[in-house]
Amino acid sequence: MSNQFHVAVVGATGAVGQQMLKTLEERDFPIGSLKLLSSKRSAGKVMTFKGQEYTVEEAIPESFEGVQIALFSAGGSVSKALAPEAVKRGAIVVDNTSAFRMDPEVPLVVPEVNEEDLKEHNGIIANPNCSTIQMVVALEPLRQKYGLTKVIVSTYQAVSGAGLEAIEEMKQQTKDILEGKDVTPEILPVGGDKKHYQIAFNAIPQIDLFQDNGYTFEEMKMMNETKKIMHMAELEVAATCVRLPVETGHSESVYIETEKAGATVQEVKELLEKSPGVTLQDDPSNQVYPLASECVGKNDVFVGRIRKDLDRDNGYHMWIVSDNLLKGAAWNSVQIAESLVKLNLLK
Amino acid sequence: MSNQFHVAVVGATGAVGQQMLKTLEERDFPIGSLKLLSSKRSAGKVMTFKGQEYTVEEAIPESFEGVQIALFSAGGSVSKALAPEAVKRGAIVVDNTSAFRMDPEVPLVVPEVNEEDLKEHNGIIANPNCSTIQMVVALEPLRQKYGLTKVIVSTYQAVSGAGLEAIEEMKQQTKDILEGKDVTPEILPVGGDKKHYQIAFNAIPQIDLFQDNGYTFEEMKMMNETKKIMHMAELEVAATCVRLPVETGHSESVYIETEKAGATVQEVKELLEKSPGVTLQDDPSNQVYPLASECVGKNDVFVGRIRKDLDRDNGYHMWIVSDNLLKGAAWNSVQIAESLVKLNLLK
Repeated sequence: MSNQFHVAVVGATGAVGQQMLKTLEERDFPIGSLKLLSSKRSAGKVMTFKGQEYTVEEAIPESFEGVQIALFSAGGSVSKALAPEAVKRGAIVVDNTSAFRMDPEVPLVVPEVNEEDLKEHNGIIANPNCSTIQMVVALEPLRQKYGLTKVIVSTYQAVSGAGLEAIEEMKQQTKDILEGKDVTPEILPVGGDKKHYQIAFNAIPQIDLFQDNGYTFEEMKMMNETKKIMHMAELEVAATCVRLPVETGHSESVYIETEKAGATVQEVKELLEKSPGVTLQDDPSNQVYPLASECVGKNDVFVGRIRKDLDRDNGYHMWIVSDNLLKGAAWNSVQIAESLVKLNLLK
Repeated sequence: MSNQFHVAVVGATGAVGQQMLKTLEERDFPIGSLKLLSSKRSAGKVMTFKGQEYTVEEAIPESFEGVQIALFSAGGSVSKALAPEAVKRGAIVVDNTSAFRMDPEVPLVVPEVNEEDLKEHNGIIANPNCSTIQMVVALEPLRQKYGLTKVIVSTYQAVSGAGLEAIEEMKQQTKDILEGKDVTPEILPVGGDKKHYQIAFNAIPQIDLFQDNGYTFEEMKMMNETKKIMHMAELEVAATCVRLPVETGHSESVYIETEKAGATVQEVKELLEKSPGVTLQDDPSNQVYPLASECVGKNDVFVGRIRKDLDRDNGYHMWIVSDNLLKGAAWNSVQIAESLVKLNLLK
């Protein structure tokens, strides 16, 4: 890592963009020059990186001249419009939106699982959906050792996944309800959808828009992306995605069935304890288990409540928690950038 | 229902006890005389029922002289000590605690599912756990029509299930966190356990105490009670129970496999629509699905988000919501009392 790189962050002022800058700073990513890009609306804002001030510029095709790596997190339409422009100008794009994730030409990468897929990139690398990333990090070691045949996941997702405005809505709404005021939801569950529901003191079984098959797009993302990342088109995956009044930190209740039966809970724990990116928090007798409130600001995926299914010797239940803005977004993107450097793919 | 009955409510001042009184009033249950009983600590309080004031008395064995039906909801130890005393004095006990639920001599009843079991009672009838009741009401019609082989449930449970003090803790903690204050959890997840965690803006994967097998007692209750109510010792059931910052209203993400494959989502919807105690709320294109915030104060079990599993033709996912203090507790208890009257079992 002797080289330094020309980096652009697109969507720098957003919830994930801000975390990307923090993460690049903390990881001391070898940055030669840094460009902060955004929509026209946020252009002109001043942000600080490593003690230096940067003025955010409007992202246009020409912004990417000379950029070697561009981290995109400004929504799917921005990525669709500008990622190809960045690639055309020689940049590698790490895209945090769903725009290119299922494109067969685009690697969808979680470094702990399929870092090697980076070698097949054509300019764009997709960062998976937040809820997918934390799940595959926890399941990949089990897949490798015991084989994986079935996954059923129910999520408990934080509002920061819906952006800074959603966080603000949750806080104000919570305050209003505690004061006995009426509330008028305007953003959650999905900013662009027709109806909005109270998130404070509630659980909303809708994240992203409904598809024709009755699943939400978030659920389909978890199902399709898991298969792609693990290179297992045949894997059975089903998801139910639910939004909670939690600011940051996604939790997941996951049931899996493995190909080989019989591994004990102790063996599964020992395997996960030494797995990359995983922190085991599993000691029921001392009430030790992962909590959303404890994961914030940490890069790892936390796993606990590992139990054997009482009916099937190849069935396991577990509770998987991670900071959705870090491993679920900013940290995984920066980690991909680090892998690109390590594999000598950044020219 | 020309007769009137001598009724006692044990634990009248608690979260469920208060709901029981409301429900008895709303249902116009044929009450000849009413006794409100509680611990020594709450004795002396004055409560109102149908516009008349009642002074709460300490529950002692002699309290049950002349009582025909006693609704217990004052904790397992109270039920263990006093339910047999009430029975000895000729009362039928409907017990809302876990004290007798798995006793083979005690029917465990959800009227929509196994009302006939009431006929086998020996004085005590157990009311199932809140999270179990709402699930079996929704699954019983499917079991009857298609057969049921496997259930995997992840719950999203409200704090009112942990009592009035837990509600107070959640509200105060939420307020403190919004004001940037430090909080010191003292009750949740389990009042009697060693450690306590923040419930505000969090999701805690522990309800009740841990058992040696790594499951919590709440999870074991859901698993064992479901099998007993449905008379299906062979049914595969697995639960993960999670406490949320919701005041009232349990939600459940449920995956089932049926014996007969091939029923369409439309057929399942039509079946549930006409099932007793169920309200179907399922229209994804108009964002109609059950919400905890909408179920409060209603007796029914709300079902929606019904989807076919994309891998298994006998697999279905759904979202089941109900007021945990009503169908999950008070209403089911009163409903059992109504069934006892209807079946002429109250002498």
